[in-house]
Amino acid sequence: MNPDLRKERASATFNPELVTHILDGSVQNTRRRREIENLILNDPEFQHEDYNFLTRSQRYEVAVKKSAIMVKKMREYGIADPDEIMWFKKLQLVNFVEPVGLNYSMFIPTLLNQGTTAQQEKWLHSSQGLQIIGTYAQTEMGHGTHLRGLETTATYDPKTQEFILNSPTVTSIKWWPGGLGKTSNHAIVLAQLFTQGKCYGLHAFIVPIREIGTHKPLPGITVGDIGPKFGYEEMDNGYLKMDNYRIPRENMLMKHAQVKPDGTYVKPLNNKLTYGTMVFVRSFLVGEAARCLSKACTIAIRYSAVRHQSEIKPGEPEPQILDFQTQQYKLFPLLATAYAFQFVGKYMKDTYHRINEGIGQGDLSELPELHALTAGLKAFTTWTANSAIEECRMACGGHGYSHSSGIPNIYVTFTPACTFEGENTVMMLQTARFLMKSYDQVQSGKLLDGTVSYLNDLPSQRIQPQQVAVWPTVVDINSPESLTEAYKLRAFRLVEIAAKNLQAELSHRKSKEVAWNLTSVDLVRASEAHCHYVVVKLFSEKLHEIQDKSIQVVLRNLCVLYSLYGISQKAGDFLQGNIMTGSQIAQVNQRILELLTVIRPNAVALVDAFDFKDATLGSVLGRYDGNVYENLFEWAKKSPLNKTEVHRSYYKHLKPLQSKL
Amino acid sequence: MNPDLRKERASATFNPELVTHILDGSVQNTRRRREIENLILNDPEFQHEDYNFLTRSQRYEVAVKKSAIMVKKMREYGIADPDEIMWFKKLQLVNFVEPVGLNYSMFIPTLLNQGTTAQQEKWLHSSQGLQIIGTYAQTEMGHGTHLRGLETTATYDPKTQEFILNSPTVTSIKWWPGGLGKTSNHAIVLAQLFTQGKCYGLHAFIVPIREIGTHKPLPGITVGDIGPKFGYEEMDNGYLKMDNYRIPRENMLMKHAQVKPDGTYVKPLNNKLTYGTMVFVRSFLVGEAARCLSKACTIAIRYSAVRHQSEIKPGEPEPQILDFQTQQYKLFPLLATAYAFQFVGKYMKDTYHRINEGIGQGDLSELPELHALTAGLKAFTTWTANSAIEECRMACGGHGYSHSSGIPNIYVTFTPACTFEGENTVMMLQTARFLMKSYDQVQSGKLLDGTVSYLNDLPSQRIQPQQVAVWPTVVDINSPESLTEAYKLRAFRLVEIAAKNLQAELSHRKSKEVAWNLTSVDLVRASEAHCHYVVVKLFSEKLHEIQDKSIQVVLRNLCVLYSLYGISQKAGDFLQGNIMTGSQIAQVNQRILELLTVIRPNAVALVDAFDFKDATLGSVLGRYDGNVYENLFEWAKKSPLNKTEVHRSYYKHLKPLQSKL
Repeated sequence: MNPDLRKERASATFNPELVTHILDGSVQNTRRRREIENLILNDPEFQHEDYNFLTRSQRYEVAVKKSAIMVKKMREYGIADPDEIMWFKKLQLVNFVEPVGLNYSMFIPTLLNQGTTAQQEKWLHSSQGLQIIGTYAQTEMGHGTHLRGLETTATYDPKTQEFILNSPTVTSIKWWPGGLGKTSNHAIVLAQLFTQGKCYGLHAFIVPIREIGTHKPLPGITVGDIGPKFGYEEMDNGYLKMDNYRIPRENMLMKHAQVKPDGTYVKPLNNKLTYGTMVFVRSFLVGEAARCLSKACTIAIRYSAVRHQSEIKPGEPEPQILDFQTQQYKLFPLLATAYAFQFVGKYMKDTYHRINEGIGQGDLSELPELHALTAGLKAFTTWTANSAIEECRMACGGHGYSHSSGIPNIYVTFTPACTFEGENTVMMLQTARFLMKSYDQVQSGKLLDGTVSYLNDLPSQRIQPQQVAVWPTVVDINSPESLTEAYKLRAFRLVEIAAKNLQAELSHRKSKEVAWNLTSVDLVRASEAHCHYVVVKLFSEKLHEIQDKSIQVVLRNLCVLYSLYGISQKAGDFLQGNIMTGSQIAQVNQRILELLTVIRPNAVALVDAFDFKDATLGSVLGRYDGNVYENLFEWAKKSPLNKTEVHRSYYKHLKPLQSKL
Repeated sequence: MNPDLRKERASATFNPELVTHILDGSVQNTRRRREIENLILNDPEFQHEDYNFLTRSQRYEVAVKKSAIMVKKMREYGIADPDEIMWFKKLQLVNFVEPVGLNYSMFIPTLLNQGTTAQQEKWLHSSQGLQIIGTYAQTEMGHGTHLRGLETTATYDPKTQEFILNSPTVTSIKWWPGGLGKTSNHAIVLAQLFTQGKCYGLHAFIVPIREIGTHKPLPGITVGDIGPKFGYEEMDNGYLKMDNYRIPRENMLMKHAQVKPDGTYVKPLNNKLTYGTMVFVRSFLVGEAARCLSKACTIAIRYSAVRHQSEIKPGEPEPQILDFQTQQYKLFPLLATAYAFQFVGKYMKDTYHRINEGIGQGDLSELPELHALTAGLKAFTTWTANSAIEECRMACGGHGYSHSSGIPNIYVTFTPACTFEGENTVMMLQTARFLMKSYDQVQSGKLLDGTVSYLNDLPSQRIQPQQVAVWPTVVDINSPESLTEAYKLRAFRLVEIAAKNLQAELSHRKSKEVAWNLTSVDLVRASEAHCHYVVVKLFSEKLHEIQDKSIQVVLRNLCVLYSLYGISQKAGDFLQGNIMTGSQIAQVNQRILELLTVIRPNAVALVDAFDFKDATLGSVLGRYDGNVYENLFEWAKKSPLNKTEVHRSYYKHLKPLQSKL
């Protein structure tokens, strides 16, 4: 082990293993996760050349090969539980993606949520075994966010009992679905359903796109890869154009809505139920934000412990860069954020399952809140993690720009989460819609439940943005509960400002849509403040569950740092709302600097607790053995440009210039 | 032309051509720039396949080929003026880099700055013609920022009158120099000079690394590519290890310091002069930040004008996404920033030349300020542009993730500017050192010149961070001059806080280095506020030079937006300093929203004025013809994965799974 890392680990005030158990949920989970990870680490079939040295086409091929092996191995190892599948896949992929990913994350779940029993019987087994390789084709070249704007049509022909699928324009070409370009032979296609001369809106259809056995596109289908992207190189995101392409009536997913053989449309009992998959994926992305940021922190903090540079005192040895206050100020708030998001991710997962069970029993009461919360937290955590990962990368100096650090791949693999499954600004506005509705309910005397219940507590009379009295309680900057209160007041204030501005616009304009648009910056601000409050609250509450004193102290410091850092960044909100005074903000800034020093001895142990095997596999800088520079040199030698001593371009292009010498 | 873009251009209130002349510096400059750009656009030798579809090795080869052609063509066209060379190269490269770039940007300038006349005679001509291909090898695997920590040694041997170069450790291996991996045959190597048993610190040596004619590494030289990176794919950033490698005494650059044949060391007259190249490159990077951000804004704003999505009013056609307030709030402050940085970049360039002329005549008085200003503004503008480019990318929805948008390549080509030529945090601390020195000078009664002269105006007694009186003047949020004053007060306050905290740490600790480290977060904050003030000031002053009324109005709105947006983002500073009140901040936020509406009709014309030909060439979304979707489809079809109907991986890995079906 690298001597610096050994020293860091020896100086920790707590046992990181115990934190790992908290993050995994239990000792048993940690044990089982490691068992599964070791299966991969010890299996020669999973060893392969570093993706970074391959061309896109080679990467795609390796990824397909790994997917095929994975299916075989999961069966062999008996891995079927969703958590176990995730552990298995995450380590096996090491910061990358897989061309058959959507078969499991979208095709099968949609089939389960929206297919009839007969449809599940027909397609489920073969898609689980990858004989049918499915993807999910919703987004079109010209249409993403606005589902009603999708142009693909499915017109029912009662004579043949078929749907005729068409992509009537260039903008209607399906664009982006993962695995569509080269890999899939089926797609669930979202299309505007026309029957008996009427449009019934978007419905889902199972569409065969390639022939089993030859894999050639079927007649009427034009399909291919959409070209190189920022990351996702091993994924064949694809396009799909359909021309009078016929599928049997039975290929419409009919668990909810139906088209009868004669073309009669039967509408679904409840429209909301079809959003299930989307809500699930969004709540999953909150956990992904936590995971990716945690991994970037692991690499950046370990590297900062190993890297020596500059002088604090002249003549003395170069210190670890983790001893520079500016480096701590860059990384420790991000580490605290990673922990905050870990707990939020866990909460979202548990909440989704709890509410989903309720839904299964017919209780839809919590669905609006769940929808608003997943939308907002998806946006809040992915935006934050997105810029935080880049900050981690840039905190690694020059080496952060090399793929040897692993962070560029974490970033490019993560950043689409800000856009897919609901563009973040649109998500924030969905949360805002719920907040405005809740605010109106309080105004009309209703008592609210759940995360917005704080809107009950505070009579609106008390807040006049322009002329506020000092809040009755003084914020205790060392108390997570008191800081949670401060964030609550901020959220309340920004929700109220947005509501009042929306009201003011409504009183000046004709339509509520125009008013909404003209208030949307305030609305996003309100949603962000609401989400920030929820994150601080969940982190603060989590502390009560921690038994071990040594760990409680450490996590409490992270929780306070997370909260204070947010206050420092958004000081204007806290000052404008008279939630805190200028001198309190100065104390906050001072306390943050003190906390950096307090956290410093535990920094490496805190990232060790994330227990990433793939920060080891996927990055030279994050390796446990810590021989960063030797490893880096060995890694670099494998660069494809080093395969020949003299590159052919010398003889072709440069030598001719030298003949004149 | 796309009908949306035509409509936008028709609705502009000013003639963008006039703004282009301002940005270029004169009508003549614009004309000459376009002449040069047209040479490239019309020359079939510069047409090549889209880099995005090539492997790294192919990209490298195309880049070398283009470099060779470029040398030939520039001679043919008679392009020798530095500005003209830049116009030529920038268009020819289209968001990419070139393996021989450092020959021109570092090798030749260093030879000119530090070489004797005899040395220039020996190497200059052949390096200009690319017979000698040089690079600049300073950074080592284990050492970047801290130059004294570099480990490479050059030991003088008077017996043979040679220097013996050594890379004594793994960490001492030269790492990162562009073009070193495969392309260069010479490098200027920075090494610790040892002669007569004593170390005299870093000096520069011309080191042949490959044999002319065969291009094979010379004996004693180990050289290669450092492997794949986040961007810079066509660049062979390299490593260099030297083992008892001998070069003649004459290969030490001896314009300033010298080693006599007997080994006697003659020290340079003035140490500061060797920093010339570095200051030049940093001031150049300010312009690069402006250029890259302007290009990203061009693409994102044109795309937002062409893209229709969602509904503002139900049933009406989908609006241009540029009509959404949230989209305007994302992009227009960035557009204003791009303009601000354009003017700062121009100012830095002019100031560099002015002061450099002074230096040529022996006047070093302005050198400390120039050094501090370039360091701080390099950091301030590159950090801002870095995150702003990503915001532009994410404002393009899904298509921003595709290389068809051009923005990912702008980003990865630009982002290293945050780290190279001085890591940004280190740069900010260098500026802070100058600010602290200036502050002390005022305290001891000295009157300051230049950008820090505001420290004269404000007696320190007036600022007590914790208990301030209201500032005498009320900020007029519509006046660039008044806003500049507000930024000045903020800068003054943060400089003072940093100075007082530094003083307080000094009174508690023994060493001033420890005190410096423990104040460094405050110091960076002070530097940022200083730089922000300088940018606002320069933008505000620029307005006075504009004659045309219609243009003055438009640029004034951008200047006010830039200033107000910064106040909104850093509201805490303005409130804590009692520079503005809470209700004024509320007015600022309201005024920003109004300005978005005011700027909206001119948005496309404002990016047209940047006059980027390569936003057209390098991006489907930024094209003038605006047939975004048709172009995108044509582009995607060229993806290498589309070269075969069925990828070989199907037969190898997926078909076996289907045999069971």
